[in-house]
Amino acid sequence: MIIVGIDPGIAIVGYGVLEYKNNSFKVVDYGAVLTTPKNTMPQRLEIIYNFLGEIFDKYKPDAVAYEELFFNQNAKTAITVGQARGAAILCAQVRNLNIYEYTPLQVKQAVVGYGRAEKKQIQQMVKVILNLREVPKPDDTADALAIAICHGHSSHAGEMFRIK
Amino acid sequence: MIIVGIDPGIAIVGYGVLEYKNNSFKVVDYGAVLTTPKNTMPQRLEIIYNFLGEIFDKYKPDAVAYEELFFNQNAKTAITVGQARGAAILCAQVRNLNIYEYTPLQVKQAVVGYGRAEKKQIQQMVKVILNLREVPKPDDTADALAIAICHGHSSHAGEMFRIK
Repeated sequence: MIIVGIDPGIAIVGYGVLEYKNNSFKVVDYGAVLTTPKNTMPQRLEIIYNFLGEIFDKYKPDAVAYEELFFNQNAKTAITVGQARGAAILCAQVRNLNIYEYTPLQVKQAVVGYGRAEKKQIQQMVKVILNLREVPKPDDTADALAIAICHGHSSHAGEMFRIK
Repeated sequence: MIIVGIDPGIAIVGYGVLEYKNNSFKVVDYGAVLTTPKNTMPQRLEIIYNFLGEIFDKYKPDAVAYEELFFNQNAKTAITVGQARGAAILCAQVRNLNIYEYTPLQVKQAVVGYGRAEKKQIQQMVKVILNLREVPKPDDTADALAIAICHGHSSHAGEMFRIK
């Protein structure tokens, strides 16, 4: 099963592509697309949409997983991130891919084993689980891989996290 | 000049299509697309994206105008609205349309003449300016027409509100 995990923001969208087979993961690809304020906001949305489209078309994932967002920050930031997230989700939806969503708590529990894990612990566990030499950079890429791992570990639980 | 004004939300997206010529408006079309919580969120984004795509393809607008969002509500709502807005903007962007954005203050000033106008006043002025028999329903449709009027009145100011 090919899983793509995505951590969407307006400036950085992290992605991680994993193959999950016999309870273990093989790293297929990971990275991030960056957008700049030099572009207009509609252009940035299009860059994200086109970039992820290429990833989906290349790897033809069985599942695409996103983290559910929680914000304590101001609503303006939330709208901007929401717009990027909308573009990233729409990109999977128009391809009729299977879309899943996990809370930060679920991701932490799946990757580290408990829900109060800190960011650094998650990144270290991503490195260990995927047998990587270093923690992937930027953080958004490590987060995207953590979301993909979460989906792999949760997929035996059936379709309960499927939102599409 | 054909102008499409859009008021995007996740449950209701209002749209208004106006022809602006010689300083006056002709109503071409207006309405709203509704989505239901029975659909998943990705499906709702796709419904919005496809619906507006048909409007854009049908009327081939010279300008598409959105209202800039300000929120005092919780961030979860802002993310959801942001996602819908992302889908609605992306839909114009992938067609390479000219995209403009106005603040609520600009819309009020353009339609009613002063920035503290109330919602009902704006709706009444939309009815008067466009010579309609009744205030268009739902509110999102009247708002979308107000945004389109705002763009018409602002368009002589050149490209200063263009964001794409």
